[in-house]
Amino acid sequence: MTKMAGLKPKHFLWRVEGRVGIVQLDRPERKNPLTFESYAELRDTFRDLVYADDIDIIVFLPNGGNFCSGGDVHDIIGPLVGMDMKELLAFTRMTGDLVKAMLNCGKPIISAVDGVAVGAGAIITMASDIRLATPEAKTGFLFTRVGLAGCDMGACAMLPRIIGQGRAAELLYTGRTMSAQEGERWGYYNRLVDAAELEAEALKLAQQLAAGPTFAHGITKTQINQEWSMSLEQAIEAEAQAQAICMQTKDFERAYRAFVAKERPVFEGN
Amino acid sequence: MTKMAGLKPKHFLWRVEGRVGIVQLDRPERKNPLTFESYAELRDTFRDLVYADDIDIIVFLPNGGNFCSGGDVHDIIGPLVGMDMKELLAFTRMTGDLVKAMLNCGKPIISAVDGVAVGAGAIITMASDIRLATPEAKTGFLFTRVGLAGCDMGACAMLPRIIGQGRAAELLYTGRTMSAQEGERWGYYNRLVDAAELEAEALKLAQQLAAGPTFAHGITKTQINQEWSMSLEQAIEAEAQAQAICMQTKDFERAYRAFVAKERPVFEGN
Amino acid sequence: MTKMAGLKPKHFLWRVEGRVGIVQLDRPERKNPLTFESYAELRDTFRDLVYADDIDIIVFLPNGGNFCSGGDVHDIIGPLVGMDMKELLAFTRMTGDLVKAMLNCGKPIISAVDGVAVGAGAIITMASDIRLATPEAKTGFLFTRVGLAGCDMGACAMLPRIIGQGRAAELLYTGRTMSAQEGERWGYYNRLVDAAELEAEALKLAQQLAAGPTFAHGITKTQINQEWSMSLEQAIEAEAQAQAICMQTKDFERAYRAFVAKERPVFEGN
Repeated sequence: MTKMAGLKPKHFLWRVEGRVGIVQLDRPERKNPLTFESYAELRDTFRDLVYADDIDIIVFLPNGGNFCSGGDVHDIIGPLVGMDMKELLAFTRMTGDLVKAMLNCGKPIISAVDGVAVGAGAIITMASDIRLATPEAKTGFLFTRVGLAGCDMGACAMLPRIIGQGRAAELLYTGRTMSAQEGERWGYYNRLVDAAELEAEALKLAQQLAAGPTFAHGITKTQINQEWSMSLEQAIEAEAQAQAICMQTKDFERAYRAFVAKERPVFEGN
Repeated sequence: MTKMAGLKPKHFLWRVEGRVGIVQLDRPERKNPLTFESYAELRDTFRDLVYADDIDIIVFLPNGGNFCSGGDVHDIIGPLVGMDMKELLAFTRMTGDLVKAMLNCGKPIISAVDGVAVGAGAIITMASDIRLATPEAKTGFLFTRVGLAGCDMGACAMLPRIIGQGRAAELLYTGRTMSAQEGERWGYYNRLVDAAELEAEALKLAQQLAAGPTFAHGITKTQINQEWSMSLEQAIEAEAQAQAICMQTKDFERAYRAFVAKERPVFEGN
Repeated sequence: MTKMAGLKPKHFLWRVEGRVGIVQLDRPERKNPLTFESYAELRDTFRDLVYADDIDIIVFLPNGGNFCSGGDVHDIIGPLVGMDMKELLAFTRMTGDLVKAMLNCGKPIISAVDGVAVGAGAIITMASDIRLATPEAKTGFLFTRVGLAGCDMGACAMLPRIIGQGRAAELLYTGRTMSAQEGERWGYYNRLVDAAELEAEALKLAQQLAAGPTFAHGITKTQINQEWSMSLEQAIEAEAQAQAICMQTKDFERAYRAFVAKERPVFEGN
């Protein structure tokens, strides 16, 4: 197991509060675009988080009033236009690998969105487990605006599972902005929070999850993401096995002992 | 084929009105908890319902103002804490088998929820086909509160399909209560009904379904539950076969004859 | 590649505005029912649309204030009642083939619904990508009313993906009408539009999509429909490949050049 609290990433901001790791994309004067380097470093960080025993929850926060403006036109789209197929596929696989790494990191991810969250920035929120936003958040899967398909980094698979196929199709075909109010109404955002409270609310929720049975949270995450392509019969058997594993954790016994003693359980993540 | 009207279960309440079987969990002074025995007896009952030719619809009603408080802490969680893996897996498979038996019983299940429906009680409502609730219903997938994962009895597979992945994730990670109003807004509850009307409304809907083409209802249930893990092409072919079967029932001809005669069809479930 | 602008169908109305093909079911005095002949001709038309290089978007419009009354009782249900299994399966496969052809035509389909859209008429709206409706639209999956199951032409697979499993189950078991307001609230209809504006709004949206990167739209459509039965890992890899293909289109380069020149991109669909 490794420690991640001391991580010094070059291409995004990182800090740790308790057992919560906090990511902010950088360059707020440009609304925090992604670059080849930040994609790769985020992917590697989420891959490392699998083994980090000092971090239980990850939170993405906005930076300077915006979440992320997506792949930078000059830094990313320009070079892509000149690439051959081998290079293009290496790029699209790298971006997909960031989503895979987020799904597979074994820890819940909360995105707190303010201002712009578009393109790959919207994908980062989509690949998170829980999403908060301010009433001013503007979320856009705008790939079609740059001549591309809506199928970017898993969007055609994941967005319909969150907001339903009809609403997802409209967003992906038109590239239009989803308002924060639509997002809350459609189940994309779990809750809207005023900008002044967003960071505090997101961190409070993160600390609440971090105080829970974090080993079991990791199993919850694995199962939510694995069971979409199982039959219901297979999913029920998979859950019987997964929950039996959790019933052998000390956290399960801690909860029982606390209940009997009429106390609040103190979970330790094992 | 068997008759179920005369069933005398030991661990839950059962009565029959017409062709509708009505289940109530018992021990209202403890909000109707599940026990090892009631789990097993419910599982066996739903397995037998496949062959029952006197019951077409099943309704779960609350008892004493509550639906179900889930697995009892003393009767179930205590013993689980002392079990080895073989015993734990036998338990989680038994609870999963109840959901499988509900999905596979071939008859629509309506849950009418008042008061508390938590843990395995919430799962019973989730594994039903149609859900009504009072404005006071409180539904909680609170496995995380006892140190477990949200993947219990199929919850990570089924809950996202009902309310969307984002809302399901929040409920499963936090274990928080879903209010009746949220449940209705999110598509979990089909309708909210005042407590004084709940039983009558649920039974009215059940009798309406029982007066429909019940063989075809069973095919609808099979297909809804089977097609999630098929490709769309496979699902469309599966429906072509399933609907062709229904077109050879007498109920289909009865509907046509009634239409031509400008009468209301009387279905017989064959 | 073929041209479809000059199509003269016998069993439905067809006209073309720009690169948008417009379908209206016919016989408004009977609310535009489907017949064996119109099913087959629609299926063949959507199969041909795969190869049509003059049509990019298809719009279904109502006719005489209604969308479609479904399979005609006298023209379709009567003959079905007398058929043997081989003939019935040929029929249900033909109707399923219409949905498959709509899903596989490679071009976005918009349904604009007014008045009645029931039975197979509701299925046509369900198999479309984007749906608008007037406040008076009445949508019913009423197969159960004629003694059949809800699994018709893919409904048990597709409807839960659009509005969630609980709401879909109620509509399919009861056959009740979904109001336009419910449809909008549940994500079935993307937007409600007054009857006087419906055609103009649907065509405006169609022209907007036709002015977009239509090759990429076709890839979006393929991926949305294919990825439901993939694992998330498979879907992300499939999207990496699909988007890399789109990154080699000229439309992607056109968007980049326009952005650099601070102009609006003009897409050509290649």
